[in-house]
Amino acid sequence: MVTMRDVAKRAGVSIATVSFVLNDTKPVTPATRERIELAMTELGFRRNMVARALASRRTRIIAMAYPALDHRFGFSAAEFFTSAAEAARQQDYHLVLWPVGNDGGELTELVGQSLVDGVVLMEVQLDDPRIAVLQRTRTPFALIGRTTALEGLTHVDIDFDTTVEDAVGYLHGLGHRRLVLVSGDLADPRFHTYGPYVRSEAAYRRVAAGYGIETIVLECSDSTRAGREAATRLLRDHPETTAVLVLNEYSALGVMSGLNRLGRRIPDEISVLSLMAPDTAALSNPELTIMRTPGPELGRLGTEALIRQLEGATPLPPPHLIPAKLHLGESTAPPP
Amino acid sequence: MVTMRDVAKRAGVSIATVSFVLNDTKPVTPATRERIELAMTELGFRRNMVARALASRRTRIIAMAYPALDHRFGFSAAEFFTSAAEAARQQDYHLVLWPVGNDGGELTELVGQSLVDGVVLMEVQLDDPRIAVLQRTRTPFALIGRTTALEGLTHVDIDFDTTVEDAVGYLHGLGHRRLVLVSGDLADPRFHTYGPYVRSEAAYRRVAAGYGIETIVLECSDSTRAGREAATRLLRDHPETTAVLVLNEYSALGVMSGLNRLGRRIPDEISVLSLMAPDTAALSNPELTIMRTPGPELGRLGTEALIRQLEGATPLPPPHLIPAKLHLGESTAPPP
Repeated sequence: MVTMRDVAKRAGVSIATVSFVLNDTKPVTPATRERIELAMTELGFRRNMVARALASRRTRIIAMAYPALDHRFGFSAAEFFTSAAEAARQQDYHLVLWPVGNDGGELTELVGQSLVDGVVLMEVQLDDPRIAVLQRTRTPFALIGRTTALEGLTHVDIDFDTTVEDAVGYLHGLGHRRLVLVSGDLADPRFHTYGPYVRSEAAYRRVAAGYGIETIVLECSDSTRAGREAATRLLRDHPETTAVLVLNEYSALGVMSGLNRLGRRIPDEISVLSLMAPDTAALSNPELTIMRTPGPELGRLGTEALIRQLEGATPLPPPHLIPAKLHLGESTAPPP
Repeated sequence: MVTMRDVAKRAGVSIATVSFVLNDTKPVTPATRERIELAMTELGFRRNMVARALASRRTRIIAMAYPALDHRFGFSAAEFFTSAAEAARQQDYHLVLWPVGNDGGELTELVGQSLVDGVVLMEVQLDDPRIAVLQRTRTPFALIGRTTALEGLTHVDIDFDTTVEDAVGYLHGLGHRRLVLVSGDLADPRFHTYGPYVRSEAAYRRVAAGYGIETIVLECSDSTRAGREAATRLLRDHPETTAVLVLNEYSALGVMSGLNRLGRRIPDEISVLSLMAPDTAALSNPELTIMRTPGPELGRLGTEALIRQLEGATPLPPPHLIPAKLHLGESTAPPP
């Protein structure tokens, strides 16, 4: 049986220092920590580490649960993930990504193993079965997103109301009165209770009605191909449209490319605005005008909210809802 | 102390069935497994699960190590990751993503905790410090990528030689003789021993020399902005160029958009081909001609190679190197 004494000897430090590292009771320089951890792994001190994790029930690992096999793990998701990982690292935690399904089954298996201190949930459904799993297993968690019933749940999210108000307000201010929203495909079982789609579309209907604008919503799946097809439907059924708002980041690139191919000049003849986009504007030509998703902020805040919970600190102060901000590209202009 | 009997009673199954699930000794229907796992979590059987993991040293979890905070986790990475997760799931493993740095420090901390059965390494450097960490800790691993010294290492990778031969052969066949390679930025410390860049550039120099084509290589960072700047340099310094090959997926979109903005018609005046691209072709207008990165295949093969190792099965049969395949878009044509 390898002891702390063996580790201390091999690492050339005192037993007390090994203990500080093992129990996180006192800060140790990164170099010393690394030397000790190396000695532990070289000597096969692994079982003791697991025993410690078992005893203290603390691994300093947190998991981000993202249904990567059901929801496309694209630019936007990568932004949330990398900023969350960065935030965790700054507080000396490891963040790992669990690509578990949204139904709670796989999550049950993983949390059952007590491998992590807590979980950040992404791609939250309005009534999300994963929450019951986490509550039953008493796993601390934070949501990036919102269920319908939120009481007692730690969460951060996009402020969809403000985002849509700002976007429509901007286009209305340019003079646009004939708008179309290219929404998500709520008939798709993956998305029919997906918060961002449901809330954005509801906000759009409310805001458009407020301006007295006719509310036209086209459903569209989450791909550039679907976006191109939506552009065809748009010009066929609503040729008088002067501005299009698009929910999904890939659909937005597709709508623009589709309109282009159909000979519409953007933004001279028709404006395109992407409603929830990461920094993909630079990918398109002309550059898309976007409402910039606060992915970096929310990834950080969600992780921080969870870590505060784990450490018994005061809860994250508001605001917990962050709007997407208008980022002017070249795809919007006054109507012709 | 919660016993297997308690779990069996709660789940309404025999103790033997609980044991099958706990020890993986006999297949059990997914529904039964879920009922048992639910009962275990509800009764707080967690410590026993960890104890089991400790005893058998098997968690049925494998980690993909990807330096997501150093290397952009983009489309291409997401393809490798999701196909690897899918392959793991099909064999009843969980794959999780560890965004640990390339230097081996964080990896040491994570593998030291014995939380996973093995590791799939991505973004492999020619001399990768993570390999020593995994070997010291006797952690089974497989590489998606290649170090310079490969002996005894389980790996799968892109066949860069064939990929570049096919790409240059295609352009040469169209009549192009004035080519430029927009390569990665090998001066960037993140990439100076990054296999895909080093191997692709070397292959290009060899193949171009073979055709008697003047070898022109422009360095370019991994972003659309950098790609646009490269387009400016290209037209200024090498205005006679009729075809451009671009290594990085984001740079490729940038080069095309940059050439567009500078008034060059693609493909009439200049052809653009993306050398290692996931399915991003549809994002650009015109659609990029790409060498399609075999991300889905390699994610699956890398995971399978690791699982075979974990289970003492025969090693993955060759081929271990898969070329990217030409996928014709609209950005290439004979020279003017």
